[in-house]
Amino acid sequence: MPVNQPELSPPLAVPGFKVGTASCGVKSPALKGKRQDLTLILSDVDCHAAGVFTQNRFRAACVRWGEQTLVTHADKIRAIVANAGNANAGLGEMETIWAKQLIESGASAACVGADSVLSASTGVIGTPFPIERIQANMHEAADSLAADNWEAAAHAIRTTDTFAKWSSAQIEMDGTTYTLTGISKGSGMIHPNMATMLGFVATDAPISAPELQVMLKRVANRSFNCISVDGDTSTNDTLYVLSSGLGLGHAPLSDTALFEQALTELCIELAQQIVRDGEGVSKFVTIEVSGGATESDARTVGRAIAVSPLVKTAFAGSDANWGRILSAVGNSGVAIDTNRITLSADDLLMFEKGNLHPDYRDEEGMAIFGNDEFTISLDLGMGESSATIWTGDLTHEYITINAEYRT
Amino acid sequence: MPVNQPELSPPLAVPGFKVGTASCGVKSPALKGKRQDLTLILSDVDCHAAGVFTQNRFRAACVRWGEQTLVTHADKIRAIVANAGNANAGLGEMETIWAKQLIESGASAACVGADSVLSASTGVIGTPFPIERIQANMHEAADSLAADNWEAAAHAIRTTDTFAKWSSAQIEMDGTTYTLTGISKGSGMIHPNMATMLGFVATDAPISAPELQVMLKRVANRSFNCISVDGDTSTNDTLYVLSSGLGLGHAPLSDTALFEQALTELCIELAQQIVRDGEGVSKFVTIEVSGGATESDARTVGRAIAVSPLVKTAFAGSDANWGRILSAVGNSGVAIDTNRITLSADDLLMFEKGNLHPDYRDEEGMAIFGNDEFTISLDLGMGESSATIWTGDLTHEYITINAEYRT
Repeated sequence: MPVNQPELSPPLAVPGFKVGTASCGVKSPALKGKRQDLTLILSDVDCHAAGVFTQNRFRAACVRWGEQTLVTHADKIRAIVANAGNANAGLGEMETIWAKQLIESGASAACVGADSVLSASTGVIGTPFPIERIQANMHEAADSLAADNWEAAAHAIRTTDTFAKWSSAQIEMDGTTYTLTGISKGSGMIHPNMATMLGFVATDAPISAPELQVMLKRVANRSFNCISVDGDTSTNDTLYVLSSGLGLGHAPLSDTALFEQALTELCIELAQQIVRDGEGVSKFVTIEVSGGATESDARTVGRAIAVSPLVKTAFAGSDANWGRILSAVGNSGVAIDTNRITLSADDLLMFEKGNLHPDYRDEEGMAIFGNDEFTISLDLGMGESSATIWTGDLTHEYITINAEYRT
Repeated sequence: MPVNQPELSPPLAVPGFKVGTASCGVKSPALKGKRQDLTLILSDVDCHAAGVFTQNRFRAACVRWGEQTLVTHADKIRAIVANAGNANAGLGEMETIWAKQLIESGASAACVGADSVLSASTGVIGTPFPIERIQANMHEAADSLAADNWEAAAHAIRTTDTFAKWSSAQIEMDGTTYTLTGISKGSGMIHPNMATMLGFVATDAPISAPELQVMLKRVANRSFNCISVDGDTSTNDTLYVLSSGLGLGHAPLSDTALFEQALTELCIELAQQIVRDGEGVSKFVTIEVSGGATESDARTVGRAIAVSPLVKTAFAGSDANWGRILSAVGNSGVAIDTNRITLSADDLLMFEKGNLHPDYRDEEGMAIFGNDEFTISLDLGMGESSATIWTGDLTHEYITINAEYRT
C-alpha cells in the first residue's frame, strides 16, 4: 500500500487536449472489459513536444520511434497513444513493426497523421505484442475522448501500480492562467520482466519545442531521475511533455523560468507518487546531499545511498545504521574526504566531520528510522552543490513480489 | 546454510609459518572463552608481502596502516595480527591509536618489530575498540603458535560466517614442492554495519615483494573482485599474501606464471566459499561474460548482472527471467549492440543476436533456474575479452538478516 499518499485532487483539464481510454485485454483477452489498458491523448492543434527516455541500452521500439519523431516533428505533435499490459520489447524485428502499427492505429482513429503521434508501451517483455486486440478497440478510445478524462487515463496506463498517479498545477503569466496536468505510472518491475516508468504532461503554456526539450532534461534530472525504487532502469522509460499553447495562438511565455519551476514541481510530485507506490516500499525516505563539488557528485552520492541494499534493509528494519550510509558514500566513486562529512537524520546530528557526534544516542536515531517518512541529510563539505533523491526501503514484500510472483 | 559447499580437506602447514589464536571477548566480554577471536600469523623469517585493500573511500585505520607498512617494509614482514568482533572503524582519531596498539601488542607477543606486523580488524563499526581485552589475551595467541593451526585461525577470523573457509595447494618447481595455504572470511554485512572480506595467504614459494604486489592485483581482479553478495564493499576489506621462500633461502621462482595460476585458483576457491556462505544465499550462480571489447567491459557487465536486485530475486524465485538479465546488461554503462547479444543458461540457448531463440521454451529455462547452482553465459559479440563473476540470489533470508537483526 502506498506510503503516506494523500488523496489527490481531481486532475484539471488542459485547454486543447482531450483524453480517451479503452479496454483491449492487452495482457490477456480475459481482461477485456475488466480494466482499461489503452490511452489516447489528443490535441486539437499541433503541439510543441519534448521527451526524455531510458538510458538503458536495450531500448524498446516505441522509445526509438518516439525519439526519431521528435527529431523531425517536435513542433507538430498531435497525440500520444499508450498501452499497458505488454511492453513490445525484446521481440526483435517484429517490435518495430508492431510499434509502427500501434502509432498508425492511434493516428487513424484520431484522424491525424502518423508522423504526429508518439507512443508508449508498458508491461510484459518478450511476449508477442497483441496488436490486433489493440486495433480492434482503438475506436473505443477515440469515442471516449473528453477534456476531463485524465483520471481515467491515469488508471489505464497502470500495470502493477496500486493507485493512479496524477498532478495538476496552474501558473499565471502574461495575464493568462496556464494549466499543467501530468499522469505517471511505475512501481518497480512487472512480471515477468521489467517495468516502465511513464510520464505524460500536457500544458497550454506556450513554449517552443527546442526550449522545452532543453528544459525537460533539467526537469527530469531533478524529478524522475532523482527517484530510485530498486536501482534498475527499464527498456521503455519515457517522459513526454506536450504544449498546445503556441498552437492555440498564445504568445510565447515571457518567463520560462517560472514555467520550468512549475513543471519541475509537477514532475517531482509525479515521481514521488511512484516511490510511495514502489514495490514493497514501506517507508518514504528523502536523501538530501549538500556540499558536493558538483551537482553530479551530489546526485551520484545520493543515488549510491538510495540503491544500497544494506542501506535499504536498514531503513526497512528501522535501524539507524549510519555506518552503512557512510559505506555507501565511500563506494559511490565520488572523491570525498571522510573528515569533512556530516550526517543527520531529520534534525538529529549523527556523524560530524569524520566522527560520531558525542551527543548522538542510538535510541534517538532508531526512533527517527522507525517513522514511515524521514530525511537523511549528508554534507560532503567539498563545495556548494546539492541534490535530493527520494527512495524507499527494501522489504520482504519486495522479495515476494519479485521472486515469488511467477513460482 | 552454505550452498553446495563440499567438506574441506585440512589446510596444509606452510614452511616458515606458525599460527596462534586466542579468545578475548572482543565483541563482548561474555564471549571470552566461548569463541576464538584473535589470530596471530607469524613467520620465522622476513617475508616478502603484498596486499590489496578496499576501494571504499571510508577506509579503516588497519587498512591505511597496512598499506603504509607495505610501502616501507614489504620485504620484511613477519606477522599478521587480526581480530574479529570489532572493525575499529568509524571512530575518528582513536581508530589510528587503537590500530597502532593492536600491532604493537602482536609485535610484542611475537617478539618482532612493530614495523614488520600487518593487522586486520573485522566486526562492528562505530563501537569503541576494546584494545585492553585484546592486549590482555595476546599472550594466549602467542602461546598457541603452531604450524598446523590454520584451521583454528580460519575459525577465529569469522564473524557471521557459518563455516570456516580455507584452501591449500602445492606446486612443484625447481625440484621443490611449495605450499600455499589461505584463509578467508566474509558473508555479506555484519550487524550493525558492514562486514569485511578478509583473506590471508601464506606460501613458501620464493617471490619478491614487488613481483608479488603486481601479481596480487591481477589475482584479486580474477578472484575476490569477481564475487558479489550484495554489491557493497566494506571499509576494511583486505587480502594479504606473505611469502617466506626467499627468507628461507630458496632461489627465486623460475616460473612465476605457474605460481600465479596456483595463487589465482586458491583465491578463487576462497572467494567462492564466501559466496556459498553469503547472507541469505540459496543459489550459487556463475556469470560468464565473453565477447567483451575489453576485460574491464566484460567484468562490468558481469557485475551489473550480479548486483541487480531484479536479477537476484529472479534467481531466488527460480524465474528464468532473461529480460531482467538483458536489462541489467543495458544498464551497465558498457557500449553494447543489442543485436549481437547471445544469452544461455547452462547449455540452453535463450536469446540469440537480439532475438529470443525460437526453440527456447520457458519450462526448460525454469528448470535450470530451479537448480541451486547454474551458469549464465552472455556473449556480447563486441570482442575477445571475457570475465567470470560468482554471485548468489537475493532472498527473504537476506532481508531478515539485514533488516531484522537489530529490531
